[in-house]
Amino acid sequence: MAKTIFHPETDQIELTTVLEALSDPIRRDIVLGLSEDGEQNCSSFNGLSSKTNLTYHYVRLREAGLTRTRPMGTHRLITLRADDIESRFPGLLAAVLAAARAERAQRQAEDLSASLIGEARPRSEDGA
Amino acid sequence: MAKTIFHPETDQIELTTVLEALSDPIRRDIVLGLSEDGEQNCSSFNGLSSKTNLTYHYVRLREAGLTRTRPMGTHRLITLRADDIESRFPGLLAAVLAAARAERAQRQAEDLSASLIGEARPRSEDGA
Repeated sequence: MAKTIFHPETDQIELTTVLEALSDPIRRDIVLGLSEDGEQNCSSFNGLSSKTNLTYHYVRLREAGLTRTRPMGTHRLITLRADDIESRFPGLLAAVLAAARAERAQRQAEDLSASLIGEARPRSEDGA
Repeated sequence: MAKTIFHPETDQIELTTVLEALSDPIRRDIVLGLSEDGEQNCSSFNGLSSKTNLTYHYVRLREAGLTRTRPMGTHRLITLRADDIESRFPGLLAAVLAAARAERAQRQAEDLSASLIGEARPRSEDGA
């Protein structure tokens, strides 16, 4: 199984494809995880979506030039091409990651707040 | 015709919507034009696409929070909400604009090079 995994060269990475790849919240979560924890086994992100969806997201990220995939036995390890993206589009990935971190913090605060409200006041079945 | 034109508040501008809006090359050209020349009549961008397409792109940009539209008689004037985007997602718009400028320069160089080659060597009808 010596199938070559396609990765675009750095100078062939396109802004449209990168922005499309980063416009999806699950793909941003994957990118954020890779930026924080380094190389990951694909299965590390199983909590984010179904396996089929994740496979699709990994392909989008890799073909956009955002990640590099390398096979390791039956596993696939994935890293963020942070330096390549930085040299191609200076400042872009850092700005998106900062925004994604802020977004995640806000979401966690909202989830916490909703769960506290939920505990204090059981949800009514009345839609109004 | 006192129809209100919807604009999201700055703190309601969402990263997903902004990145989706910026992932289109024509919308990036509009954003680039607004960043360089300030407020524009919508018709300034008529060279970029059909009127119907442009109308769609203006709505996407405005609803994403990237632009502000104000009616002036029978015209619509459009500005970039650069400060709002900067305060919401620091560094993001600047990085995308820099990348879009680089992309435009590359495209212009390629067009020039293609037209010089075209002049020197008339295009063959042979697909090979």
